[in-house]
Amino acid sequence: MGLADTTRIAAAVAAQHDLARDLFDLLRRDGQDDPGVTRDPYGPGEQRAHATVAQAAQRLGLAIEHDAAANLYMTRPGRDRAAPRVVIGSHLDSVPHGGNFDGAAGVVAGLVALSALAALDQTPACDVTVMGIRAEESIWFQVSYIGSRGALGTLPDGALDVRRIDTGRTLADHIAECGGDPDKLRANARTLDPRTLRAYLELHIEQAPSLVESGKPVAICTGIPGNFRYPDARIEGSHDHVGLPRRFRRDAAIAGAEFAMAIERLWEDHEARGIPMAATLGRFHTDPAMHGLTVVPGAFHFSLDVRAYDEAVLAELDRAVDAIIAGIEQRRGVRFHRGAKARAAVGAVDPAIETALTKAAEVHGIPTLALGSPASHDAAAFAACGVPMGMIFVRNANGSHNPHEAMTLEDFLAGTTVLTHWLAKTVC
Amino acid sequence: MGLADTTRIAAAVAAQHDLARDLFDLLRRDGQDDPGVTRDPYGPGEQRAHATVAQAAQRLGLAIEHDAAANLYMTRPGRDRAAPRVVIGSHLDSVPHGGNFDGAAGVVAGLVALSALAALDQTPACDVTVMGIRAEESIWFQVSYIGSRGALGTLPDGALDVRRIDTGRTLADHIAECGGDPDKLRANARTLDPRTLRAYLELHIEQAPSLVESGKPVAICTGIPGNFRYPDARIEGSHDHVGLPRRFRRDAAIAGAEFAMAIERLWEDHEARGIPMAATLGRFHTDPAMHGLTVVPGAFHFSLDVRAYDEAVLAELDRAVDAIIAGIEQRRGVRFHRGAKARAAVGAVDPAIETALTKAAEVHGIPTLALGSPASHDAAAFAACGVPMGMIFVRNANGSHNPHEAMTLEDFLAGTTVLTHWLAKTVC
Repeated sequence: MGLADTTRIAAAVAAQHDLARDLFDLLRRDGQDDPGVTRDPYGPGEQRAHATVAQAAQRLGLAIEHDAAANLYMTRPGRDRAAPRVVIGSHLDSVPHGGNFDGAAGVVAGLVALSALAALDQTPACDVTVMGIRAEESIWFQVSYIGSRGALGTLPDGALDVRRIDTGRTLADHIAECGGDPDKLRANARTLDPRTLRAYLELHIEQAPSLVESGKPVAICTGIPGNFRYPDARIEGSHDHVGLPRRFRRDAAIAGAEFAMAIERLWEDHEARGIPMAATLGRFHTDPAMHGLTVVPGAFHFSLDVRAYDEAVLAELDRAVDAIIAGIEQRRGVRFHRGAKARAAVGAVDPAIETALTKAAEVHGIPTLALGSPASHDAAAFAACGVPMGMIFVRNANGSHNPHEAMTLEDFLAGTTVLTHWLAKTVC
Repeated sequence: MGLADTTRIAAAVAAQHDLARDLFDLLRRDGQDDPGVTRDPYGPGEQRAHATVAQAAQRLGLAIEHDAAANLYMTRPGRDRAAPRVVIGSHLDSVPHGGNFDGAAGVVAGLVALSALAALDQTPACDVTVMGIRAEESIWFQVSYIGSRGALGTLPDGALDVRRIDTGRTLADHIAECGGDPDKLRANARTLDPRTLRAYLELHIEQAPSLVESGKPVAICTGIPGNFRYPDARIEGSHDHVGLPRRFRRDAAIAGAEFAMAIERLWEDHEARGIPMAATLGRFHTDPAMHGLTVVPGAFHFSLDVRAYDEAVLAELDRAVDAIIAGIEQRRGVRFHRGAKARAAVGAVDPAIETALTKAAEVHGIPTLALGSPASHDAAAFAACGVPMGMIFVRNANGSHNPHEAMTLEDFLAGTTVLTHWLAKTVC
């Protein structure tokens, strides 16, 4: 690979600066919901983002398609249309009052890369499709990877019948309303046959401050965690008067507190052993209909998300959580009701892609970090189907899932340069 | 004291069986709010109870009066109307969906005792007043002893401006609506001058199962706990993505869990040292507007009630809570906002009354337990003003502040026999 090539690629991406800026501005305007941005999946927020992105793709001359899950496909045809294609995707929904970049940056990066390749007059050997994926943020339907698994035909049983937590309407209803076809999804008919996919690449803002801490703009993903989750667990104790002596109490909130501290110790132990994981009790609360200053809590509700990069570690953590619950139930006379359990498989990164992305950054003089993804991503759904997968993370201050996400356009273009270089060298 | 007297008193109280039963039935009908009973203070529920009790008192020939806090006074005149009087009181409000006996039993006991004395043809030396006290349950206005402190002129500053948690209207508004005079209360004008009170006695159901555990029907109170409270405390951390590594997190819910466990350890330590206390985190919750499966909680809310029988112990606990908070703030990068702090003084029982009540039970062959009150009671507000105070607890299964309170009429009449005996022997 010549130095001239590298310089031309860098210049072609840099020339997309205004395209990226304007598209991010439009998306922010579309999603504005102070504080921050709300792109509710299969609802008005996500719909507006899809329309805006499709318009931009049309202006770039890309072919537009949709599937039964109402995902958006924006394709630059390759020289051999029958050859397995490359998909560059990310999601266009957000959490409520989230930031502008979580998800959308990956779709904008795909469009910027295709626009840069066109400017370089490079025609790819195979189709390259930018995919605007539906409903990745599981806070809404409490199901992971809805859009990507809908496309791949791997949606879990019952997923179409779950209800969005705010509207109370089923996923099937929401999909139909946005032009999708829930009946087709029910039959697990897939739009994307893994055998027809050469690779899936995703650029995403980093959702933790590891890049900020390290002073580097870009990270190359080494893996995506799998998880198990209890979205709606509860503890049943006994509501009692505030004066009740301790020996008579069955305090559900204190049981919850003991559970939380035990989960934290589990994480500390794994950290000490050098095994990456994370555990979060996102909802953690007494019952608003019953709780009060002078009532010992008899009911406590929580959600649990446990994630790790190794299926064996996840299985061990699953057993450890069961043991913690059994101990607390016995000691405190309370009963845990775990409710539904959700799982997502570990997403393995393709070693060849990881190496190629790292080298692409090197030749552009872009410092990178090798980073296990702290968060889940649609890329894991592709990896689970055997599609070679890679991810690029871009430095971002203030975390994500909040209005204060802060990615600079400069860092975004650095990450997109890595992506574009990979495309130019791999499929052009 | 002759055996004949004792037998006559016991028979006179037993003869009030139907009066007590019917009055409890009427009160239950008045307060019905499935599940259980709701007598909302300075609202329709409490109003109905006051009307029912006042009617019963009129039928017994008692003189009816009200004060600026809309408390109800039902008086049997004594031989010397100028002599310091005895007040037998309890409250007529309840928690939402509570039981029929918490509070009301003490008022019914007073009426039964006066009816029994009348049947015995005993005229007391001084006035004996049964007091139907307003608004004792602090879950509603989050202020302790509103009715009794209103009568005694010891309401804390600002109490009249607090709002009922369900209606959002001020205590002053609620009092005015029920025939009281908030302006008079604002001037701290008292209806009950402690120097004109010979004693305050209160019968109450036990709110813990100590009597059930011991197999005894009645307990004689050895003291009422004082407390300090944070009704509306919160912890401020940082809302972050579920994948955020532990070293970057400022998880407000885990900080809350650590706080709860530290409070429990404090209690365990005091138990081990034989120092009675209680601590309750009645509200203990993430922010429903922000929390979710995939968000690290950045806000956590709780209420804290800490109670003990000794002012020095309370002061030490207060310092211990401060130290726990300081440690957690430092370790976890979160900030505690304690909000308003409420206090109630320890209520000391008059030793002469305690001894006399214990002896009264003995002569009637009623087994008793000496018991520190687990809960707060209006009696503490009287004790705080220097009024000699005593309390009688009646066995009750299933705790209180819930629909399943279970006091038998037999146990109630046993407790009322002790009260009647004390009146007959002390003031007749």
